[in-house]
Amino acid sequence: MTHGETFALFLGLGVILAGARLLGEVARRLGQAAVLGEIIAGILLGPTVLGRLAPASFATIFPQQGASWTVLDGMSTVAVALFLLVAGMEVDLSRMWRQGRTAAAVSVAGLLFPFALGLGAAWMAPGLMGMSAGGDRLHFALFMATALSISALPVIAKTLMDLNLFRTDIGMVVIAAAIFQDLAGWISFAVVLSLIGTGSGAGFSLGGTVVAVLAFTLAMLTVVRWLFHLALPYVQAYASWPGGVLGVILSAALLGAAFTEWIGVHAIFGSFLVGVAVGDSSHLRARTRATIEQFVSFVFAPLFFAGIGLKVDFVAHFQPGLVAVVLVIACVGKLIGAGFGARLTGTPWRESAAIGLAMNSRGAMEIILGTLALQYALIDQPLFVALVIMALTTSLMAGPLIQRVLARPKARRFVNHLTVKGFVPHLRAGDAEAAIHELAAAAAAASGGDAGRFADAALQRECSMPTGLSNGLAVPHARLPGLSAPVVALGLARPGIDFSAPDGRPAEVVVLLITGDDEHAGQLDLLADIARTFADEAARELVLKARGYTELLAALRTAGAG
Amino acid sequence: MTHGETFALFLGLGVILAGARLLGEVARRLGQAAVLGEIIAGILLGPTVLGRLAPASFATIFPQQGASWTVLDGMSTVAVALFLLVAGMEVDLSRMWRQGRTAAAVSVAGLLFPFALGLGAAWMAPGLMGMSAGGDRLHFALFMATALSISALPVIAKTLMDLNLFRTDIGMVVIAAAIFQDLAGWISFAVVLSLIGTGSGAGFSLGGTVVAVLAFTLAMLTVVRWLFHLALPYVQAYASWPGGVLGVILSAALLGAAFTEWIGVHAIFGSFLVGVAVGDSSHLRARTRATIEQFVSFVFAPLFFAGIGLKVDFVAHFQPGLVAVVLVIACVGKLIGAGFGARLTGTPWRESAAIGLAMNSRGAMEIILGTLALQYALIDQPLFVALVIMALTTSLMAGPLIQRVLARPKARRFVNHLTVKGFVPHLRAGDAEAAIHELAAAAAAASGGDAGRFADAALQRECSMPTGLSNGLAVPHARLPGLSAPVVALGLARPGIDFSAPDGRPAEVVVLLITGDDEHAGQLDLLADIARTFADEAARELVLKARGYTELLAALRTAGAG
Repeated sequence: MTHGETFALFLGLGVILAGARLLGEVARRLGQAAVLGEIIAGILLGPTVLGRLAPASFATIFPQQGASWTVLDGMSTVAVALFLLVAGMEVDLSRMWRQGRTAAAVSVAGLLFPFALGLGAAWMAPGLMGMSAGGDRLHFALFMATALSISALPVIAKTLMDLNLFRTDIGMVVIAAAIFQDLAGWISFAVVLSLIGTGSGAGFSLGGTVVAVLAFTLAMLTVVRWLFHLALPYVQAYASWPGGVLGVILSAALLGAAFTEWIGVHAIFGSFLVGVAVGDSSHLRARTRATIEQFVSFVFAPLFFAGIGLKVDFVAHFQPGLVAVVLVIACVGKLIGAGFGARLTGTPWRESAAIGLAMNSRGAMEIILGTLALQYALIDQPLFVALVIMALTTSLMAGPLIQRVLARPKARRFVNHLTVKGFVPHLRAGDAEAAIHELAAAAAAASGGDAGRFADAALQRECSMPTGLSNGLAVPHARLPGLSAPVVALGLARPGIDFSAPDGRPAEVVVLLITGDDEHAGQLDLLADIARTFADEAARELVLKARGYTELLAALRTAGAG
Repeated sequence: MTHGETFALFLGLGVILAGARLLGEVARRLGQAAVLGEIIAGILLGPTVLGRLAPASFATIFPQQGASWTVLDGMSTVAVALFLLVAGMEVDLSRMWRQGRTAAAVSVAGLLFPFALGLGAAWMAPGLMGMSAGGDRLHFALFMATALSISALPVIAKTLMDLNLFRTDIGMVVIAAAIFQDLAGWISFAVVLSLIGTGSGAGFSLGGTVVAVLAFTLAMLTVVRWLFHLALPYVQAYASWPGGVLGVILSAALLGAAFTEWIGVHAIFGSFLVGVAVGDSSHLRARTRATIEQFVSFVFAPLFFAGIGLKVDFVAHFQPGLVAVVLVIACVGKLIGAGFGARLTGTPWRESAAIGLAMNSRGAMEIILGTLALQYALIDQPLFVALVIMALTTSLMAGPLIQRVLARPKARRFVNHLTVKGFVPHLRAGDAEAAIHELAAAAAAASGGDAGRFADAALQRECSMPTGLSNGLAVPHARLPGLSAPVVALGLARPGIDFSAPDGRPAEVVVLLITGDDEHAGQLDLLADIARTFADEAARELVLKARGYTELLAALRTAGAG
């Protein structure tokens, strides 16, 4: 690479990553998935906005030819393969088997109905569905059927976790069904790709590719999965840690990707199945999983998703009619298919609707599918734009709508209720009672409530049973009738205040928690969250060293989160 | 990218990563640095071996033209920039200032003497030193001077840690001096690059580039460093964790790299200084540091180091005379410079020699410098091969020679003394005495020693003070005269055996440790290591679930290591 190309490569990478992460964070703060912000960052930096407003800057940062562009393109191909590796690692095959009848009904109905709807619509009205002139009608219809029936496990899992539904019955059914649909969707796409003959290097025939895909899938789900499970303890025992296991997983993913590319389907299929095979092993340590997942989701994935906006002009190719048709057919297919599947096995209406809404999220998977279809000229840019918008819309509507249908609250974190006024860096109190009064005053200042009522309620609770926990933490708390939102105050005490903790240690961190009396689950959730946060010793030390509200918040938010 | 190029990209990446990690592990098992194995993997996969023996396979996996080669090249450029980011993050500026006189003397003498020696030798005898015909003598001499005076902080730190010297006086002096030399070496190289005019895109003059380099360095070490320190708590408090901080550090590194490339010096200089600036903040959490470091050292760095062997034929360009000259001048310069520097400030002879040997390691830094010089045609392939061999030789000899000079033992881990015969998966004993007898028998079987002597000694110690620690761990131990190596046996007990632990919990893991009586430090080190290992709760659970020696080893080796 020349000097100028190296410069453009680093500048382009740096700008994409910074932009994608920044807007990803903004999206997250607005309660949306980070991927939305990442794609918008790409649209802003790409031909749609920057290319229109400042063509010269755009050409400097992202020269659309030359080595730097090739490298960015190659890195985004690697990034998407690694993203699918992580998605595969989240697939829990044993959970899929355990969910039984409902999951099976949701999977099959949620797959077949949208598939049939997509196939029918695209076959009957290819023009309306956005087929480009001269396209092959069968290939196009098969692709649309696959595109409408796929789901997005990572987005669905994230939505369920946000709503505290992940470990409930509904959550388990949805996850099991999504795992099945992910597997089926990618296999179906692999078959579509082999049908259109993407130019396999190994010269496989169509039948050969299909057989190779099925054999590879079967091998990964059985023999290879078992080999990984056998090999991991040896790797962790005899190779360096975590370098050995990172090397095994990533090189297996890359070689798997090369293999599926060789047999004539896309690379991501191989890395996805490697992820499924290795992620299922109980020998894989949570720390390894987290390292791979964090690096991929926060570094590689933003490169890929922002990269989408760099290649396509979203304004020039926006066709409202096509967007509306794709969106409606997509929602109708999944909501009816998955929802009725659940209802048929006796799930109540509300829950069935929630299952349908959850399965409707298309997220990143749809976008990846669309990118590949665009690359192989199966679809053209207007339909790609419509698919991206459909993917984002279905993902964004899932959370709020499920919350409304089930009336579920979001996962509770006490730190979300802790404002700057509720933080007392130096408690002056010498005993528990005075400390509770001091914190009640801070809580009242933070919430506009009555300090006396807060203190009385907490003291009454304190008398019946002291709230000192181990490790220098005390959590005086109480319920107050009519309180609409939880009130939290946090104080630090040196050398510490006696709260009659079982280990005899005085409390250096005192958290006062006042909740409404109707929210039984809320109080317990928040108390558990406080205990979990302070179980992280490093975080506890950072909290004690915090010199202001921001440092305190930094310590609390980074605690125990892996 | 076409189908064939995508295939070649994934295949090439997978083969490089698998080969580099595998040989990296082999090197590590032989007590050498992983980088040695990684480079050898590249030589085996490159033109030197695979290209000679199987040219067709070589051309399939690594086509030396086309998009996949460009992407591999671009990724290895990004990889080396990230490697320098991590190297920069290890620089601790405050430690550098604290070490005072000796560190200053070692730094300055260890920098100036090899610099003068290299400058003189290359200027007087450019042919002997490997200058290519038609090269510019001044540029070449300046480059050789820099190449001989640079050191390699990561390798040096690793050697010191292996020898348990990292936190000693010698260790501190060496690290402080290496930090200074790293900074000075890279600034000097930046100046050399700007001298030869690598074709700056911004059209800086030579003076302009030098001023820009110095201003950038100063800004990164002062203002930007302070801004990072201020910003990190906000990022950790308000952005997602660890995505926010990963995004900030990596995009800053990429943009810093783009900036230094733009002003006419290489990209790695920018990412190195970003690393120094951000790594110095006490707000940076160890977990973030570890995630970046692990991904870079185990994924990106192997790509770069193995990539070196892919580009150069190490057999065709091996010139023994040149290798010998470069090696001798390199060692003489550093040993005399750094060693005398230490001696002049009153350090004893042995320690001075050890300091000289430690500073002599050139490691990865020299290889990176050589790669760039080769790329800019400052040197040709034979000298590059000589520099790589010199870098590896000086790094490999440091550890064993320092150990001999100082008679230092290696860092002790009890798991290294635990063999399959020393593992008792189910202790049958019901009390502490019987458990000690059972483990003593296993220890005797493992070591060929006398079970009765082991048991008697441990029981005697047990009577004077019980060895139950908290969290279900007991460590009966004793010293025995004349024992040459420590003997370890580990047993698991369910429901647990009472070892009079302070928390009253019966011991589920019992480790018997018998050491020689002359190794005072050895016993304490091993006891501390056992306690540290079992402080990791996740590891403790895995140990209890271990169904065999390999699973046990996997649990112990992955414990607490970040």
